[in-house]
Amino acid sequence: MELWYSEMHTPNVKLSIRVNRQLFSQQSEYQRIDVFQSEQFGCFLTLDGAMMLTEKDEFIYHEMISHVPMAVHPNIRRVLVIGGGDGGAVRELLRYPGVSHIDLAEIDPLVVEVCRQYLPQVSCGLDDPRVHIHYEDGLKYVRGKEDEYDLIIVDSTDPFGPGENLFTKEFYGSCYKALKADGIMVNQQESPYYEEDAIAMQRAHKRIVQSFPISRIYQAHIPTYPSGHWAFGFASKRYHPLKDLDDRAWEQLHLQTRYYTTKVHRGAFALPAYVEELVRDVE
Amino acid sequence: MELWYSEMHTPNVKLSIRVNRQLFSQQSEYQRIDVFQSEQFGCFLTLDGAMMLTEKDEFIYHEMISHVPMAVHPNIRRVLVIGGGDGGAVRELLRYPGVSHIDLAEIDPLVVEVCRQYLPQVSCGLDDPRVHIHYEDGLKYVRGKEDEYDLIIVDSTDPFGPGENLFTKEFYGSCYKALKADGIMVNQQESPYYEEDAIAMQRAHKRIVQSFPISRIYQAHIPTYPSGHWAFGFASKRYHPLKDLDDRAWEQLHLQTRYYTTKVHRGAFALPAYVEELVRDVE
Repeated sequence: MELWYSEMHTPNVKLSIRVNRQLFSQQSEYQRIDVFQSEQFGCFLTLDGAMMLTEKDEFIYHEMISHVPMAVHPNIRRVLVIGGGDGGAVRELLRYPGVSHIDLAEIDPLVVEVCRQYLPQVSCGLDDPRVHIHYEDGLKYVRGKEDEYDLIIVDSTDPFGPGENLFTKEFYGSCYKALKADGIMVNQQESPYYEEDAIAMQRAHKRIVQSFPISRIYQAHIPTYPSGHWAFGFASKRYHPLKDLDDRAWEQLHLQTRYYTTKVHRGAFALPAYVEELVRDVE
Repeated sequence: MELWYSEMHTPNVKLSIRVNRQLFSQQSEYQRIDVFQSEQFGCFLTLDGAMMLTEKDEFIYHEMISHVPMAVHPNIRRVLVIGGGDGGAVRELLRYPGVSHIDLAEIDPLVVEVCRQYLPQVSCGLDDPRVHIHYEDGLKYVRGKEDEYDLIIVDSTDPFGPGENLFTKEFYGSCYKALKADGIMVNQQESPYYEEDAIAMQRAHKRIVQSFPISRIYQAHIPTYPSGHWAFGFASKRYHPLKDLDDRAWEQLHLQTRYYTTKVHRGAFALPAYVEELVRDVE
């Protein structure tokens, strides 16, 4: 018998992963949640059929969404993670002794429960006393907060379905207000390659540019995401993602990483000409 | 009706592209050659079933294999392209007025013929008077040549089948001899992500390190290649790929590119920590 999980990256391209067995499948209040066991990528989680993370390559996404802002801002203490119920971003943040408080606003309790059970190496930080989980819509959670966080990480699903709110102008404006005067917001921002994803990337970038004085795109190689070329947004009130990167300070923390290095950090902001053009078009 | 081309990236992962129709299919003396028309990637060429290039994303591979050495060496006149019968690397090289002579050693005449017919936007430079096509095995062609080229581009297939010779120590040694005292060799070097590809990348790097005093890996985002994360080798007798990059000189050529920029050049050499480790292990 052959069992394959396939994700349509566009209506004309699909990536398929051979599955040993399906470990979990349930419709939550918000979305369909599945967990599969595979030879190639170990255990992996999908939401409404879309790949969220795999045991084998999640380190790329989680390191790049966390260490980039952490290496720029010299004193991050209070962090808000929106989405990210798998705990991967939280796990990376907890490696910094300076981080004293993490709020995690995840809309779907079942995502957290499932990741605790099937992906313990990702969710392992969720029981840390510094972490406070709030089962709430990210937009509602952040709305009305003022001057509270040094860093907000928007670790959302795609901009359709439950994650849709997290790509609106109102949401980015609320994040701006919730951040301190030198705060940073980082978000997952789709792929620059396939047209529909690139339009979503542009739309988000345009809205963030309208809310934050500094807004840049950076990228990583993520094999299980559409096209393998994934974009993140770096939005900031004061710190510049490259000029304020303190290589030495970060290296002195002696964090063992598998993807992120301060060299990779600099390289990640060097966008291909066609991506620069997409970004410039909406600035 | 649905018609899908699928390539196994590993025994457990496959990428599938919806095909409008198959334009060409023939077994040459060396390999099976197919051309397909697709909505997503336009026309694309496969050899023995493996994706070689698509109309839509070939610019990434061809720009990165050509402009990186061209922006480092200040005076490239004579170039040897090994493999690359599609003409994509040649097309990029011809944009430099300083390039006076290009030898193309392609083993399979049918690849050239098929690309002339179905991929004219890629093969368009092959009739340029500066280009000299030799239908010969790359290893045999380069063996015995001495002090002839400023640049050798090894635009090979994978290290199994007809391309196998182009990953041997003997071949790299012959390229070293065929290069002038300040020559550069660039080669496509598989993907660092999936284990089998990563081993091929390591093996090639190890052999190149033994032949050249300067040997570095760089990378690009290529959506249609396994994992989307593709590696190139930069091997050189004198010029360093970053220290000798002259941004200003390259920018003054005013070449319109869609992927390559000198910033991307620098970023491409910033390898993820796990890739740095793979590379260090064989140095």
